[in-house]
Amino acid sequence: MKPRFYYAPKTCALATHIVLEHIGIDYEGIKLDFRENQQRTKEYLAVNPKGRVPALVTDRGVITETPALLLYLAQTYPQAELAPLSDPFALAEMQAANSWFCSTVHVVHAHGPRGSRWSDDAAAQQSMKAKVPQNMSECFAWVESELLRGPWVMGANFTVADPYLFTMSSWLTSDGVDIAKFPRVAEHYKRMLEMPAVRKVMPLHGM
Amino acid sequence: MKPRFYYAPKTCALATHIVLEHIGIDYEGIKLDFRENQQRTKEYLAVNPKGRVPALVTDRGVITETPALLLYLAQTYPQAELAPLSDPFALAEMQAANSWFCSTVHVVHAHGPRGSRWSDDAAAQQSMKAKVPQNMSECFAWVESELLRGPWVMGANFTVADPYLFTMSSWLTSDGVDIAKFPRVAEHYKRMLEMPAVRKVMPLHGM
Repeated sequence: MKPRFYYAPKTCALATHIVLEHIGIDYEGIKLDFRENQQRTKEYLAVNPKGRVPALVTDRGVITETPALLLYLAQTYPQAELAPLSDPFALAEMQAANSWFCSTVHVVHAHGPRGSRWSDDAAAQQSMKAKVPQNMSECFAWVESELLRGPWVMGANFTVADPYLFTMSSWLTSDGVDIAKFPRVAEHYKRMLEMPAVRKVMPLHGM
Repeated sequence: MKPRFYYAPKTCALATHIVLEHIGIDYEGIKLDFRENQQRTKEYLAVNPKGRVPALVTDRGVITETPALLLYLAQTYPQAELAPLSDPFALAEMQAANSWFCSTVHVVHAHGPRGSRWSDDAAAQQSMKAKVPQNMSECFAWVESELLRGPWVMGANFTVADPYLFTMSSWLTSDGVDIAKFPRVAEHYKRMLEMPAVRKVMPLHGM
């Protein structure tokens, strides 16, 4: 069976989507429309009861959560050299980056469109939305000065952390932050745009 | 050099702390007092510029972020058998659990004490705090019915996901949720309490 990959445009599924294409895996991509709440259909909840994307359906079962998917793909296709698999310390540094993307940067971003997750009050949701540009700017100041070693996140070698950073960077404009404030991040974003896998996947995300 | 482990009581550093003790690593534990903002001292920011815990200082450098630390310890001490290291799919399932703990459950919990991260408005912060019991209950309903296979998170084998779940469970009371509503989670918590490593670490966290 071909792996089935469930995604929604412009979500964090973009990172895994790029990696699937970059490795050249023969998979079936299935787009969910969040505006029509397709992540909440009975059919999709049978795939991923959390009602979120991404989800990858394999012969063994379903994998969810971006950092888990990225490591899984790097480990399953070691010839693609997408992670420092034989060095637990270097791998921990990459995992720390990916973990911070999911638990801090993605969460900061989500307080714009998804404030209702954390408060039922409309005024509170507005107030969270208002703080997104400041928080995203602080996250990216840290990426610019510390996290991004250059040319890639982990330094000389491209890893799965790069499509993940690219995904976070792609949210900056809609979050009210000018990527040009962070020249090294902007360069990384531009370098990613030149990758064939990125060129192939972006139109599928309406980008 | 002994590894130095920076933690603060009752934070998510508890998970890594338990694993360090469980493996029997000769490390130096350094407690930070968050009430005195010791995570913001110049000295600590030189260790972890993010100003958060946990952080593990090794001969190679500093590792941060709980899921990264847990995998690092499991990989560096394979004889402890704390993760399905030779099976990328099974490892992805464990990583998905740990990733969800850090990006969803921990974030839900943080909206109680740390609402100021996402809104400057006192009323908004109150409104976030008010939703914590409902959100934590929803997270743990999912743990009870789906995530926790029993007796351990991943099934028959104890893994680093177990001290992480234990850490999340330990926050339920202060989050206004009665663990007894989730009998399988409560059993897991009780089973963890019997572990020598947990008994040793809990007093260090004022538990």
